[in-house]
Amino acid sequence: MPHDQMMTPQPSDALQARYGVRHETPSGWNPVIATLMSHRSVRGYLPDALPAGTTELLVAAAQSAATSSNMQLWSVVAVQDQAVRDKLAILAGNQKHISEAPLFLLWLCDLSRAERIGAQHGHPMTGLPFTETFMVGVVDASLAAQNAVVAAESLGLGTVYIGSMRNDPEQVAEILGLPPQTMVVFGLCVGLPDPQRPSAIKPRLSQSVVLHHERYNADHDAQGVQDYEDRFSAFQKAEGMPVAGWVSRVVDRLGSVAGLGGRDRMRTALTALGFPLK
Amino acid sequence: MPHDQMMTPQPSDALQARYGVRHETPSGWNPVIATLMSHRSVRGYLPDALPAGTTELLVAAAQSAATSSNMQLWSVVAVQDQAVRDKLAILAGNQKHISEAPLFLLWLCDLSRAERIGAQHGHPMTGLPFTETFMVGVVDASLAAQNAVVAAESLGLGTVYIGSMRNDPEQVAEILGLPPQTMVVFGLCVGLPDPQRPSAIKPRLSQSVVLHHERYNADHDAQGVQDYEDRFSAFQKAEGMPVAGWVSRVVDRLGSVAGLGGRDRMRTALTALGFPLK
Repeated sequence: MPHDQMMTPQPSDALQARYGVRHETPSGWNPVIATLMSHRSVRGYLPDALPAGTTELLVAAAQSAATSSNMQLWSVVAVQDQAVRDKLAILAGNQKHISEAPLFLLWLCDLSRAERIGAQHGHPMTGLPFTETFMVGVVDASLAAQNAVVAAESLGLGTVYIGSMRNDPEQVAEILGLPPQTMVVFGLCVGLPDPQRPSAIKPRLSQSVVLHHERYNADHDAQGVQDYEDRFSAFQKAEGMPVAGWVSRVVDRLGSVAGLGGRDRMRTALTALGFPLK
Repeated sequence: MPHDQMMTPQPSDALQARYGVRHETPSGWNPVIATLMSHRSVRGYLPDALPAGTTELLVAAAQSAATSSNMQLWSVVAVQDQAVRDKLAILAGNQKHISEAPLFLLWLCDLSRAERIGAQHGHPMTGLPFTETFMVGVVDASLAAQNAVVAAESLGLGTVYIGSMRNDPEQVAEILGLPPQTMVVFGLCVGLPDPQRPSAIKPRLSQSVVLHHERYNADHDAQGVQDYEDRFSAFQKAEGMPVAGWVSRVVDRLGSVAGLGGRDRMRTALTALGFPLK
């Protein structure tokens, strides 16, 4: 199985990479969970084309994910054209892995299909302009994309989500020829990881911070964040990155309007794209 | 592997169940893709408790999913208390599987942690009130939850997403003790499927409708939707459901404000919960 080429970690190693402490192998550990746990974002790709049928297999996995009331309010655009990938890489703030990876999947919140179905059957679709319906499309697209990611990784492929497709949603929509009521939620690079530029499993907040039992409880927050700050700094050091910690990254990103990198105008962009968010 | 107990279909059967036509087994088919492809929503559960450590294993899988800029803008509340599950089942419009399944996971878009981190470090987090940041939290929660679903299914467990946790988001927030800038995106039932009430793999739209190459192209829409209408009606008949087709369900749900089941007030609810969607 090509999957083995990704050097799937032993259970205890994977859990240590995420949480920084040794764990016994949990009961129930299996190849599926090993694939999930060994996820890392890949930003270095080989130029090799993907085997024939790969896109269709990833989309079959994506369509197998749940979708709200089976409405399937999402679509995906598969871009292979080098010139288009180069253009999108620039729009994403010069992320060269978009140019490198042979396949770039753009996941859409797509209410336009429901609009067309209504038009064909003479029903004005008055439920579409609502915030709720937009959320359904965003969630549908996300569940689908994550299944595609898991499928890709099981095939030995690497992926990385590209949120900066939201930097200029109108221009991305123009490039892809999107109809109104359709928007790119994020992109996804897919390709063979370059073994010369490996990426590591990234540590995450401890479960005491993220998992709440019965009711929300922030009592462990400060301690958990401090512990994570230490682990994340050690990770940055081990990876040869600037040791900036995690808190400063969160503050840089969310502590100012400038940190949103222009995406503070998302509301305006969504209105322009046909999502009034009533 | 308990996974086998779910009677994982043969590749050709799984693809036929989704798309209605025979397919050769795609190259690359593996146990991970088999798990993804055999997804079905489960609404009939045995009352059996889950093995110790299951919640933590699912959350470890969830935390292994990508998260935008590693900000981890999500949390999860694990509800096992029967009285609380009963209350949430009623709020969801009497969905008794929420009472039946031993574990109910509520997935949160959680900007409150970033707010607390900012407060602790003396930074007003002025990037939080934006539509973009809300979207990041919704996507983060969705990617995490989908990994948990895949992990659960690999363990032989069944799941079903509960979007109707958004019917009354303020009351759900009250029950779970959520702080401002936190909201339940959806719930997820987790439990052992009741073999007496099996669920089937649901057909989906053909890839010609959902997958676009290079640019968005709706040319195959009408034909693809008609083909799906026929397949979905045959599925309803085979499952002993009323044969209403798919188009009428989409129109019922999105063709009127009433079809949103009260969720037309989502914008107001989000404002009340601390998401002004600037």
